[in-house]
Amino acid sequence: MIKVPDASAALAYLSAHTEDHLRQLDEFLRIESVSADPGRAGEVRRAAEWLGAELSRIGFENATVHDTSSHPIVTADWLHAGRAAPTVLMYGHYDVQPADPLDEWVRPPFEPRYEDGRIYARGSGDDKGQLFTHLKAAEAWLSTSGALPVNVKVMFEGDEEIGSAPMADFMRRHRDLLAADLMVVSDSTLFDDDETPQITYSMRGMAYFEVHVSGPSRDLHSGHYGGAVANPANVLAGMLAGLKDDRGRITIPGFYDRVRELTDAERAAHAGLEVDEEALREEVGVPALDDGEQGYSVFERRSVRPTLDVNGIWGGYSGAGAKTIIPARASAKLSVRLVPDQDFREIGRMVVEHLQRIAPATVRVEAKLLHAGAPALTPVDHPAVGVAAQALEAAFGKPPVLSRGGGSIPMLADAEEILGIKSVLVGFAAANGNFHSPNEWIPVTNVTRGMQTIVHLWKGLAEAGAEELRGA
Amino acid sequence: MIKVPDASAALAYLSAHTEDHLRQLDEFLRIESVSADPGRAGEVRRAAEWLGAELSRIGFENATVHDTSSHPIVTADWLHAGRAAPTVLMYGHYDVQPADPLDEWVRPPFEPRYEDGRIYARGSGDDKGQLFTHLKAAEAWLSTSGALPVNVKVMFEGDEEIGSAPMADFMRRHRDLLAADLMVVSDSTLFDDDETPQITYSMRGMAYFEVHVSGPSRDLHSGHYGGAVANPANVLAGMLAGLKDDRGRITIPGFYDRVRELTDAERAAHAGLEVDEEALREEVGVPALDDGEQGYSVFERRSVRPTLDVNGIWGGYSGAGAKTIIPARASAKLSVRLVPDQDFREIGRMVVEHLQRIAPATVRVEAKLLHAGAPALTPVDHPAVGVAAQALEAAFGKPPVLSRGGGSIPMLADAEEILGIKSVLVGFAAANGNFHSPNEWIPVTNVTRGMQTIVHLWKGLAEAGAEELRGA
Repeated sequence: MIKVPDASAALAYLSAHTEDHLRQLDEFLRIESVSADPGRAGEVRRAAEWLGAELSRIGFENATVHDTSSHPIVTADWLHAGRAAPTVLMYGHYDVQPADPLDEWVRPPFEPRYEDGRIYARGSGDDKGQLFTHLKAAEAWLSTSGALPVNVKVMFEGDEEIGSAPMADFMRRHRDLLAADLMVVSDSTLFDDDETPQITYSMRGMAYFEVHVSGPSRDLHSGHYGGAVANPANVLAGMLAGLKDDRGRITIPGFYDRVRELTDAERAAHAGLEVDEEALREEVGVPALDDGEQGYSVFERRSVRPTLDVNGIWGGYSGAGAKTIIPARASAKLSVRLVPDQDFREIGRMVVEHLQRIAPATVRVEAKLLHAGAPALTPVDHPAVGVAAQALEAAFGKPPVLSRGGGSIPMLADAEEILGIKSVLVGFAAANGNFHSPNEWIPVTNVTRGMQTIVHLWKGLAEAGAEELRGA
Repeated sequence: MIKVPDASAALAYLSAHTEDHLRQLDEFLRIESVSADPGRAGEVRRAAEWLGAELSRIGFENATVHDTSSHPIVTADWLHAGRAAPTVLMYGHYDVQPADPLDEWVRPPFEPRYEDGRIYARGSGDDKGQLFTHLKAAEAWLSTSGALPVNVKVMFEGDEEIGSAPMADFMRRHRDLLAADLMVVSDSTLFDDDETPQITYSMRGMAYFEVHVSGPSRDLHSGHYGGAVANPANVLAGMLAGLKDDRGRITIPGFYDRVRELTDAERAAHAGLEVDEEALREEVGVPALDDGEQGYSVFERRSVRPTLDVNGIWGGYSGAGAKTIIPARASAKLSVRLVPDQDFREIGRMVVEHLQRIAPATVRVEAKLLHAGAPALTPVDHPAVGVAAQALEAAFGKPPVLSRGGGSIPMLADAEEILGIKSVLVGFAAANGNFHSPNEWIPVTNVTRGMQTIVHLWKGLAEAGAEELRGA
């Protein structure tokens, strides 16, 4: 086994500098890096440049902010751990979801609020707060022993929340720059509110669509034309309603053909991990949970089964009072979550073609794929999963739950395909941390324990050695 | 037969003063009297005061702007035609529909544009431009023979586009002030673009609803919660889609129970009045007309059959790019057009109860009736209809078509119920004049011929005499 410097100095450094680190995170969270908003492109770039400067300050080399067809990609490296040590690719995203509806935030989303040991801010959990833990783990090692136990490469993107469009191409054009033995990602959550850590060994893929139903060339008087001219809002409602049957199954022909059923091992791993349905119902504030797709538990429907959701719908008059019109058009945003082995390209075509096929002759329907990403899976017996489990237990005092996640990180599958590396996902966000919602939050202890986890993880990976990871 | 002053002087006066009258109409159309917009309440009142001043200037007496629970009601009278002469109640509305979508107007909606013999402006057809013809007919009579051939009472409201809420109560409290033998209304259209006039002897009633579907207490991450928490946008789409079956029938139990079928006489009157479906399709710019309710012609579906339309729908994310959420809520505005003998109160309850009944247990549904009005019908053999037909033929050079209209004037039925008077509807707006749509317009000749029609109509009613109308 390879001799690796003890982690205690790095851990002590972290405890001694918590205040400074939280101040730096506050500064990072104030940058309004909303990738979906063209008006905020400058803020997104500012976040990228903040990271570039921070990486250099910590002691990384070759920190570079790369221009892309969309938002910048930040890379850097520290490669002095030697050939025997594994090379870890640190991935995270510095862009955030739009913050609206703004009026539901207790404090403005980009003015972090500290309360009850929580940090409330857009991006606190997804993903700035988690990405930040990796930076500080590196700072802790470099400031104490002047070295990292593993070789580390960095790749931070600014397009994750809008589909990571530039990433695949970027990875293809920089295979050497990014070559590594393992990708480590913190863009997921703890298993529960009881500080049980979690290793997410699979993420769902996604395909996101916009559909526009156009009828008359202008809004029409519903009294003079009602009954004679099809109403695009009624038509859209009918099209969307038909996408699921009354048993919660998606009706698009072929949609389930490639869905991989759970193995017995997975079912075993899930045993005892059932969701507390009453607690979930209370947490989200609904009168009852969705029956969802019949034959699957809530836990499975949230993680290992594909889903379809209307993410937005609009058309006609939504102002005060009454406007009696047949709207000229109605639109919706629609997304499906995909699971192994669904092919996101195939599903993208399938959904667009289906929407066109079910469109009545009385309207024009434009359906387009906005973005899509493949599901990703890392075998639970991959050596890095075991090392990550020990690192999480060391930091959180409990062994982690192994599970498949419901969310999507579109570039994970691309990284596997293009760079030929597996990913291990160690999540530090709160299980109910309002990802993509108003009042997003992360516990301060998750941030500090996250930093500790990464310190332990790199040490563990160094001890395992490059050979074993490459062999996996 | 009663001796009535000749109309030629009044008609000559109208031709001589067309320029002045169009200038005055321009001034009236510039007042932004959007009743649905609380921010424009001052503009609505300004329109009422403009009318009060104009009525007095013309020679009406007792011009009064009455405050109500909503927008003002304007009354005035001229009652010196004698007991033998009928008393006509002049009704119109000075409020207009909201103008959005603003970007589809060639010119701002409240800056009238004259082009190709048309006046483009919000309210040019519905109803300011039509109401104005009655004012100028009175001015023509009073300035030439110093008298009107009939007694005239005036009632102009500012709530027609939002349901005429204050009208019923106002009529109940002012039965004597408003007592009359007949109500004359110009708030409808010509039959076609070929200047064929039209007497609308029936209007559809209406009930207008808002439905709000609430799910989670905040927008949720569709990856973490999709499949476990019902999506209010999907639920709303399903509820709306289920309101009609695939044969175009409204599925709400009991909805059609009181619908009066067409008489043979009506079918005969409609013979030869079939809509040019290709021309209609071209006019509104749709790839195909709605199949609509099977078993009824396009003409019948537009006028004598009830309809259901989603007037607006909104929920979740509609901004640029992708936001992967389960929206906390989704809403729609929804209206039904009613025909004799549907009871708008009963239908109002029926629809609200149905929406509550079909709401799944996974969401909260709030459905409320915003406003409703009864259908109205005046027998085609009513003497005033014959007089109106002659007046229209005198002004337009063609006999009018008698038909039932698809639109709604909620207070017509109230007037019949409360004041005990029938209404005759002579319409001057263009058949495709973009009522409730961008670029609303009216032909200048319809305005001038409308003034002539009212001059003839009053003369004809005077000759018919009060007795005959009262007997009807």
